[in-house]
Amino acid sequence: MSDKILLIICDGMADRPVRQLGGKTPLEFAETPFMDKLAEIGCCGIMDPISPGIPPGSDAAHLAIFGYDPTKVKVGRGYLEAVGCGLEVEEGDIAFRCNFATLDGQGIIVDRRAGRKNIDGKVLAEAINNIKLAGGIEVTFKPTVEHRGVLVLRGENLSPEVTDIDPHRIGVPPMKAKPKTLTKDAKRTAEIINTLVKEINKILANHPYNKERVKAGLPPANTLLLRGASTKPKIKPITEKYRIKAAVVAGGALYKGVGGAVGMKIVNVEGATGTVDTNIAGKFEKAIELLKEEYNLVFLHIKAVDNLSHDGDLKGKIDFISRIDKVLGKAVEEYSLDRCIICLTADHATPVEVGQHSGDSVPIVMAGPQILSDNIKRFSERHAAQGNLNRIRGMHLMPILMNFIGRMELFEL
Amino acid sequence: MSDKILLIICDGMADRPVRQLGGKTPLEFAETPFMDKLAEIGCCGIMDPISPGIPPGSDAAHLAIFGYDPTKVKVGRGYLEAVGCGLEVEEGDIAFRCNFATLDGQGIIVDRRAGRKNIDGKVLAEAINNIKLAGGIEVTFKPTVEHRGVLVLRGENLSPEVTDIDPHRIGVPPMKAKPKTLTKDAKRTAEIINTLVKEINKILANHPYNKERVKAGLPPANTLLLRGASTKPKIKPITEKYRIKAAVVAGGALYKGVGGAVGMKIVNVEGATGTVDTNIAGKFEKAIELLKEEYNLVFLHIKAVDNLSHDGDLKGKIDFISRIDKVLGKAVEEYSLDRCIICLTADHATPVEVGQHSGDSVPIVMAGPQILSDNIKRFSERHAAQGNLNRIRGMHLMPILMNFIGRMELFEL
Repeated sequence: MSDKILLIICDGMADRPVRQLGGKTPLEFAETPFMDKLAEIGCCGIMDPISPGIPPGSDAAHLAIFGYDPTKVKVGRGYLEAVGCGLEVEEGDIAFRCNFATLDGQGIIVDRRAGRKNIDGKVLAEAINNIKLAGGIEVTFKPTVEHRGVLVLRGENLSPEVTDIDPHRIGVPPMKAKPKTLTKDAKRTAEIINTLVKEINKILANHPYNKERVKAGLPPANTLLLRGASTKPKIKPITEKYRIKAAVVAGGALYKGVGGAVGMKIVNVEGATGTVDTNIAGKFEKAIELLKEEYNLVFLHIKAVDNLSHDGDLKGKIDFISRIDKVLGKAVEEYSLDRCIICLTADHATPVEVGQHSGDSVPIVMAGPQILSDNIKRFSERHAAQGNLNRIRGMHLMPILMNFIGRMELFEL
Repeated sequence: MSDKILLIICDGMADRPVRQLGGKTPLEFAETPFMDKLAEIGCCGIMDPISPGIPPGSDAAHLAIFGYDPTKVKVGRGYLEAVGCGLEVEEGDIAFRCNFATLDGQGIIVDRRAGRKNIDGKVLAEAINNIKLAGGIEVTFKPTVEHRGVLVLRGENLSPEVTDIDPHRIGVPPMKAKPKTLTKDAKRTAEIINTLVKEINKILANHPYNKERVKAGLPPANTLLLRGASTKPKIKPITEKYRIKAAVVAGGALYKGVGGAVGMKIVNVEGATGTVDTNIAGKFEKAIELLKEEYNLVFLHIKAVDNLSHDGDLKGKIDFISRIDKVLGKAVEEYSLDRCIICLTADHATPVEVGQHSGDSVPIVMAGPQILSDNIKRFSERHAAQGNLNRIRGMHLMPILMNFIGRMELFEL
């Protein structure tokens, strides 16, 4: 019995019939000889990431696929982003997602993204991280992509029960943080945030970097809009649940975050950007390297299929799927299907003609040791639905896979 | 419309691809013309006894298949064993599973099974059943197989909330029963058990049968290790739920127990041992006799497939499946498929190469009056998965079957 699983999730790969393709889906139309080979030697089916018809956010879909019920487990986006960008979030810490934004002289938001591109978050982060708050509260800010970043508060008696600063529109001032509950901790945390924001605004307004931006005609990044206060969730890590070593190989911070949140080791790969230019080959090489080491489960995430679908780029989606197929085929050829179960699926459909996530079921294939093959020979939405896995839920995937590597415990009375 | 169902459960029959069989499963490889005929005239599918990927204990799987949610219904093993061996367990009674064991002169357990074989439990039972306890508590002990037995306490204000006597290892004395809760009843019950065990030890130590065992160089069965205190569960019997008469034909006490626990009449068949030498033909004859009488549902359990799988006996498993097929075919030929629905499945997979229960789905076929056939012509894990039943849960089987004999009530607002 093998005890290795490579789980490949192609974000938003599933689609609907496209008239331009004679009613075929992009996955059906693409050249995917290796995915088809997986279908031929393995077992196919369709999966409802959350439940039939529900269009999932990528975070919720991944949580479900990792075996956690997203309708029950509370996991905040602030926490996921923080974990995803490599910040340590301990019990009691409060994590926020945040945007650099531009305030005018009257304190009104004129750009929620401070121009979006070319913001040197690192320079500003240094200033923010030097802020000293009363009561021993520590502030850690880390810029991520473009205008985005994550902020973590550490200290005693902090509460995530506070409202957002970000009003999600321009022409108004940022909001004040307010306690959502009547507890002392929530009240205190709201006060701390409001004090912190004042400090941040003061520091950013006078920061030489912003003065230069103004001189160059760029909107200054002179405030931070915080949102999504959240704490470390109380979940049993996947590694403990199934007694495995698990790792995530992904470009996007959110996916590293969800993987990290359930206990996977976050492994960074050079050039893994989560965009069309990503280093797919490098990601597969790293995944197989981890499987050759002591890792039992490697979750490999490919984001760009979803981006292309959101952009309605039909040709781009088809070409990118074929590109994944080539790299997948080459990587697996060099490793061996005798030693590892490969499971390939999507976290949701993003039909190119819709341009956003939909609640369609997604095709899934699993192949490798212990898996009984069926008579499906092509990997697509249409073909996989005929497979022997029939129709499963996202929540069931992890138990099904863990069963094949002998990691499920007997259910007894 | 027929109102007869023969439900045949071949314990642990489902399996995985076996290299030695060219990737076929034992069920695929075995000669099963009659099972295939059932598939041809009936409707196939796959079933997850508990839920996808979960390896079930046989007790939990059977409860689910009988329509009771094993994640919600509490049914103790002590109770199941007691019912299975024919003891009446009433509300308020406490049932225990127990082992004859051997204590040395210092009261240390030296053999948890008192030599295991050739113990004349009946002789010792007589002595144990003569014990008089204070407070009108009645003791009923019944030996079952080898060193095993069941003990039931009857009286007022007894509680199942007591710890085990059996330490599950040798080299230590038996434990004292302790109350698990602070209630008066639990405290009193623990005291009663400790007094009872003292009495049992005294009687067994001096029993002529044990003196003979010692003379013959055999370990004396000089104590009883009790465990799994449990009461009659609060469940609505299957007979009331569906307004049917139901019976169980099984060799193993556990299966008789689960059947009896949900209200089936336990019907014993001579030579039905639950082993490879079992009287399969006799069991089928009896089942059909019951169906010809007023019984609507007969549950026929065949255990040996599971034993052979646990032993990794590939040839034995294949041969035994073929043997079941022959007997099944002959029995049904003599009865008639026009008069009865036959449903054939397994309670879980026990892959021969794994040697223990796994969480794979199991194949299922139902054929007979009111059942729409599909285009599946072979009964196996691979073929059944293509059938029209698709993928169901164990919990759904009873409503599906009862629906075909008109026993389901309308669900209305």
